[in-house]
Amino acid sequence: MAHTKEWRSSMKIRFDYNNMMQAYIGEHGITDEEIFAKSKLAKNALNFYKTNRGTGMMCWSELPYNQTEIVKELNETARYICKKFKNFVVLGIGGSALGPIAVFQALNHLRNNELPRKVRKVPKLYVEDNVDPERMASLLDVIDVEETMFNVITKSGSTSETMSQFLIISDILKKKLGDRAKEHIIATTSENKGNLIKIAQREGYKTFYIPDGVGGRFSELCPVGLLTAAVMGVNISEMLKGAADMDKACLNKNVSENPALAAAVLQYIAIEKGNNISVMMPYADGLKYIADWYCQLWGESLGKRIDLDGKEVFAGQTPVKALGVTDQHSQIQLYTEGPFDKVITFLGVDKYRAEVKIPDGYKDIPAVSFLCGHTLNELITAERMATEYALMRAGRLNQTIMLPELNEYTLGQLLMFFEIQTAFVGAMFNIDSFNQPGVEEGKNATYALLGKEGFEDKKKELASAPKKDAKYIIQ
Amino acid sequence: MAHTKEWRSSMKIRFDYNNMMQAYIGEHGITDEEIFAKSKLAKNALNFYKTNRGTGMMCWSELPYNQTEIVKELNETARYICKKFKNFVVLGIGGSALGPIAVFQALNHLRNNELPRKVRKVPKLYVEDNVDPERMASLLDVIDVEETMFNVITKSGSTSETMSQFLIISDILKKKLGDRAKEHIIATTSENKGNLIKIAQREGYKTFYIPDGVGGRFSELCPVGLLTAAVMGVNISEMLKGAADMDKACLNKNVSENPALAAAVLQYIAIEKGNNISVMMPYADGLKYIADWYCQLWGESLGKRIDLDGKEVFAGQTPVKALGVTDQHSQIQLYTEGPFDKVITFLGVDKYRAEVKIPDGYKDIPAVSFLCGHTLNELITAERMATEYALMRAGRLNQTIMLPELNEYTLGQLLMFFEIQTAFVGAMFNIDSFNQPGVEEGKNATYALLGKEGFEDKKKELASAPKKDAKYIIQ
Repeated sequence: MAHTKEWRSSMKIRFDYNNMMQAYIGEHGITDEEIFAKSKLAKNALNFYKTNRGTGMMCWSELPYNQTEIVKELNETARYICKKFKNFVVLGIGGSALGPIAVFQALNHLRNNELPRKVRKVPKLYVEDNVDPERMASLLDVIDVEETMFNVITKSGSTSETMSQFLIISDILKKKLGDRAKEHIIATTSENKGNLIKIAQREGYKTFYIPDGVGGRFSELCPVGLLTAAVMGVNISEMLKGAADMDKACLNKNVSENPALAAAVLQYIAIEKGNNISVMMPYADGLKYIADWYCQLWGESLGKRIDLDGKEVFAGQTPVKALGVTDQHSQIQLYTEGPFDKVITFLGVDKYRAEVKIPDGYKDIPAVSFLCGHTLNELITAERMATEYALMRAGRLNQTIMLPELNEYTLGQLLMFFEIQTAFVGAMFNIDSFNQPGVEEGKNATYALLGKEGFEDKKKELASAPKKDAKYIIQ
Repeated sequence: MAHTKEWRSSMKIRFDYNNMMQAYIGEHGITDEEIFAKSKLAKNALNFYKTNRGTGMMCWSELPYNQTEIVKELNETARYICKKFKNFVVLGIGGSALGPIAVFQALNHLRNNELPRKVRKVPKLYVEDNVDPERMASLLDVIDVEETMFNVITKSGSTSETMSQFLIISDILKKKLGDRAKEHIIATTSENKGNLIKIAQREGYKTFYIPDGVGGRFSELCPVGLLTAAVMGVNISEMLKGAADMDKACLNKNVSENPALAAAVLQYIAIEKGNNISVMMPYADGLKYIADWYCQLWGESLGKRIDLDGKEVFAGQTPVKALGVTDQHSQIQLYTEGPFDKVITFLGVDKYRAEVKIPDGYKDIPAVSFLCGHTLNELITAERMATEYALMRAGRLNQTIMLPELNEYTLGQLLMFFEIQTAFVGAMFNIDSFNQPGVEEGKNATYALLGKEGFEDKKKELASAPKKDAKYIIQ
């Protein structure tokens, strides 16, 4: 179903940064002058995006526009999977998992896997993004692999976690199904390189491709995320439309009219002033894992030792996930009274997809009965506004992104907003937002510990590292 | 089943802080001299704990010792619930939810609710710690209230979220079951004050009491957490025994032999040096929500505007939850290369409760086949050690708490370790670790927005607050 222009226009997300400003929160706030002083920086960041989009590792910017044929194929495959399989399991980690989890949580029933098949209409979804043996064993306790389609996602085909899971699952499938095992595995990987594509071709798996210029954390809007979404009944065209419309809004050269650019400038200034923490706090269970997805995008893109000139900068801002109202009872004490070291971004929803009334009762206990007659919708909304207000009064940097509703179109906007904001901030800090050199050391040490060929020197290095001192271990 | 002394002695958790030390990580590390310089601070913190334990808001320190009768009653009730009900639902938020969730995840099958009843032997568990209307609607889509026991947990009986949920559920129960509704609700609350105890007595609910001197975030080891654990088949006596043994270890006056005191001194020094972030990163899905529980304990206890002398200090360190190995593919880039602003605490497990072998295959692709023959256990362990190593090489503060196994006894130790460490650090900063004045503003604003009696002035204040400026909202 395609939506009308009017409907889409009523579904634009709003970025509200009143409470980032000194006029509202006082001395720790940002002024119009400070924003104005970053005009050139903002202009350069926008130019960077415009100039480099669709090239190098910035091919993600074109995903909203260049996938018409792929979307068709994804939807066809999704219909087949939906009809034929009881479970859909993603084997992937990091960018291959966080997007699929976030979109599933946002657009499917919150207890999808517990609904009877007739009600839910789509398969159960499992995203296996860890290698804890207890996790794998527990999955195998609750699914029948013969009723399950597995989507193995790794661009390089050399992600140890995913390839281990793949080896375990394909072995089980082969033992149970022989030649028909291949009908239970889809490989989502690079078309041109790596091991998974080799294996997929040899085994005859159905494949989807991850474009070369799309890194893991920017891959939700390519087949990495879209296949799972389509299988789960999501209108992926509408998600891409939302992303496209946000992309267009973020090409506006006026900071005050460009949501991601304004957000980037504000966050840049906040970081400059020492706010090394960025809290993402949605007020909707459906948006809970958007915060997890954001944490990878923000942390891995901006956390960099050197800038593009090779200068040591140790850049980055630590993302923190929270959930409203839940974490009001966990983190708001700290956010209100602790150090002035963070920006809090609330995500709100104007209209939830359910309404639950709080019924009458206990009229003689006013401390309880004042709730009666209200809805949970009013309660969660009042709490979000009250928390914003309390943080403002405490002089704390906070901003709010409002979604008119949570649906494919608004979610597409939201994902693209954060991706573009990340690219802008990376450009402002003059760093490469699209690599992750810092994970190599740990990867190589793992290879060495597991005896991978070619890592004999690293193994020696590990062996000669200073031994742990028993006096620093307390039992 | 009671364990032997030898077994317990083999099950002591180990606190390893080698990688906090300058000798291992270089300039950003801590020296023996720096630790020694805090001897008096440490001594005072220990004295504070010894002197105040069992009094005021520190009655949680006695929970491992003073609940023999309560444990008996909890176990009896648990057996009844387990026999009679298909679902057990906790209505609670913050400290009433985070402990029960953490222990359930740690000690039950990771997919408990999806197992057939015969296999799991215990009810399905739902912990409803938000008021998103979609969340409540989705719960009601998958449970039959007639087969469900609800445990309403709020000490004050005035927690808006929990009381709203209670009103909704009790209304549904009354409409379906009339007088028998009361057989489906347990109230866990203060014995002496508040609204829930009044309601419980009027309605004839079974009740459990939250001791006066036990705050929400220190309440897992009282009925708040123990009832759910017992219903889910956990040996709660063994959990308390673990907590008791940790408590004893933490009374040792030598910092180098007292795990929580050493951990407190190290974290105190790290905070003094500007590390305003504390990352909790378990390498086990079972320990995932221990990180959430820790985040409340740490954030809400230490995040304080004023110290005990009334001086403005804006104390606190922001807790961050992560999961190994999953977040290696999300946060480790930042932790390795970003700012030197955090301490990372790994939680490891020597022996997982399952072993999964990676089968042979693809001998001609060495980049894949090096994994073959190993187990997922070896992989996750290698990755934890490799990540520790990489962080050490990058000069980053990190420490590891190892559990020989994840069971009731080690979990009891772990919970008590963090509670005592928090009390120690709070004492070192000369703050009240047991209050949460910073949440009042938001609570009152919520009351005002919902029209609660007595908050008319707050309502006026809200109405006269500066209006949001449209120019700071981008659509």
